[in-house]
Amino acid sequence: MVSLTSAPPFWLRDNCPCPDCRDPRNGQKLFQITELPAALAVDAVHDTRTPDGAPAREVVWAPDGHRSVYPETWLGAHLPGTGTAPGDGRTEDDKEPWAASRFDGGLPEADWDAYTTDPAVRADTLEAVLRLGFALLRNVPVRDRQVLAVARTFGHVRETNYGELFEVRVEADPNNLAFTGARITPHTDNPYRDPVPTLQLLHCLANAARGGDSGLVDGFHAAARLRAEAPEAYEILSRVPVPFAFSDERTELHAHRPLIGVDPAGRIREIRFNNRSIGTLRQPADLLETFYAAYRRFADLLLRTELRLDFRLAPGDCLIFDNTRLLHARTAFAESGDRHLQGAYADIDGLASTLAVLRREVSAR
Amino acid sequence: MVSLTSAPPFWLRDNCPCPDCRDPRNGQKLFQITELPAALAVDAVHDTRTPDGAPAREVVWAPDGHRSVYPETWLGAHLPGTGTAPGDGRTEDDKEPWAASRFDGGLPEADWDAYTTDPAVRADTLEAVLRLGFALLRNVPVRDRQVLAVARTFGHVRETNYGELFEVRVEADPNNLAFTGARITPHTDNPYRDPVPTLQLLHCLANAARGGDSGLVDGFHAAARLRAEAPEAYEILSRVPVPFAFSDERTELHAHRPLIGVDPAGRIREIRFNNRSIGTLRQPADLLETFYAAYRRFADLLLRTELRLDFRLAPGDCLIFDNTRLLHARTAFAESGDRHLQGAYADIDGLASTLAVLRREVSAR
Repeated sequence: MVSLTSAPPFWLRDNCPCPDCRDPRNGQKLFQITELPAALAVDAVHDTRTPDGAPAREVVWAPDGHRSVYPETWLGAHLPGTGTAPGDGRTEDDKEPWAASRFDGGLPEADWDAYTTDPAVRADTLEAVLRLGFALLRNVPVRDRQVLAVARTFGHVRETNYGELFEVRVEADPNNLAFTGARITPHTDNPYRDPVPTLQLLHCLANAARGGDSGLVDGFHAAARLRAEAPEAYEILSRVPVPFAFSDERTELHAHRPLIGVDPAGRIREIRFNNRSIGTLRQPADLLETFYAAYRRFADLLLRTELRLDFRLAPGDCLIFDNTRLLHARTAFAESGDRHLQGAYADIDGLASTLAVLRREVSAR
Repeated sequence: MVSLTSAPPFWLRDNCPCPDCRDPRNGQKLFQITELPAALAVDAVHDTRTPDGAPAREVVWAPDGHRSVYPETWLGAHLPGTGTAPGDGRTEDDKEPWAASRFDGGLPEADWDAYTTDPAVRADTLEAVLRLGFALLRNVPVRDRQVLAVARTFGHVRETNYGELFEVRVEADPNNLAFTGARITPHTDNPYRDPVPTLQLLHCLANAARGGDSGLVDGFHAAARLRAEAPEAYEILSRVPVPFAFSDERTELHAHRPLIGVDPAGRIREIRFNNRSIGTLRQPADLLETFYAAYRRFADLLLRTELRLDFRLAPGDCLIFDNTRLLHARTAFAESGDRHLQGAYADIDGLASTLAVLRREVSAR
């Protein structure tokens, strides 16, 4: 039997599961934390059972006499000092970091037909995006705007100044290097946007040009390596906000964020890396000196061959990847050749929600 | 004449404005930081003029012989130790914090006709959203889905599990307290989402019910007060990630973020506050004890009358507000009465971009 003495009263009461305290339909809390009496204390504790017969403990509260019934299983898993606190899936703690050799046995991929018809395949694919940062769908219909339909299988399209979808092909008057045949080194997209789009989709409609191969680098793994190899460089890159900017005739975006974003516990949570859109840093000279040394070191590390997974998108392939973690790249291609991708942005919270609901269905079978 | 001796070489070279280094169409950088020679140094500096005749300095670089021409005005504004570094507009440094009396003379508002026809009025309105956290449009057509048209005047709609738009009215089987007649205390929306929607729009179609008044609280101002009055409470709320959750039949969202989000320099950047969706914190007992004391103190502060701006939305009013800064609330209303708002989410980076482009047009007149 669990003892309740370790539980701070306000914490315990805030977790009261009774229908007066929480809406049974959605778990939303129905009281304000300020409505609890300042002198809140546990008055008495009794053994009891939940309505469906599970062992539980009933707390009678002073001074208001409220009664809370906590299942023993809940207490055993949530009381301070018990179990492991789950994260929200977004920091390095919940990821599987990788170098390219991780995929010697093959990429995390699924056939479009299986993905759309089999919830277990769909769940595995979305799980790969969360855990590894990407997944590849094969044999997706080669159809204009199909990338939007792919995004809608797990979430909502994030429209930007580039539109609901963007065309990655050679353009006559490109407003972005992506729309030329130039080589593009590993980068994350839209670092000048805040909130940054957390997912990107790239759907290949044609890839007959010489060159134009794809590459992915795990930015979380690279940042962790930097932390191990050059802690002072890691520290400065997680601390100094970098001014990212993008501007054309219709747009003027600015965001100031560090290259390595960490959560309050110092865990890696978000990578922004895009040499094309780094603006002018305004810092004291000595900090600029140190920042640039660290930035060059991280950029060098990101170019290491063993970190970079190379592959080639074929028509019908659709790559889904975490734009807060993975850097993507492509080799140069002949501008006379036929290469055409359609891209779209979406958000990873929606994908994680879809996966969680799918898991309920798969496990209810 | 500015001296270049204070400028770290990699920083200065990274800012070379020549067309080989930066795409003149969009300012994107065309080289990688790793492509610069490790032994990069200034070889010589000459006085010169830019193509349009402005005084400038030419730097000749060793060892690669590259030449960079920097206008004197640029150097005077950007060299380390000069000028003031602008922010990206998102932290407390770029905001005007307020208590309710700030608006004794009136709310930041504009008539829909003036807003849609006069770029200066549109610019002032969007500027109010950035600086004060909100603006009110009056006489917006009382039309189904009009809120989406309002959002598209400055940006892109952020679709969520609630749809492209959501109906705020009494529903028979509500999945959220918002869709009942209950009082709702000051909160931010969707804290269980990451990225959280940074802007919210509420368009009033009907408000004939008894009650149902609106309230706004400046969360940045409240957090700054907490920092002044109870630094240890502020510190813990900016440090401890809080598990927010929302779950219904089709959705299961989780985000772990502090109530007070700060940037790496410690400036207030994002408030999340919503008692309804705080899940179970998993921390050592002593930290839970301190956290709950701090949480209750902040919650109390947010209820102070002088912080809360009260007003009533009339049909045709559309409120636009920063959901990362302002908390919104409403008084209870009679469920038999006719009250109907349509809401939508959007993002503030797009609004800031629209404003920046408008300012170019207004100043070019």
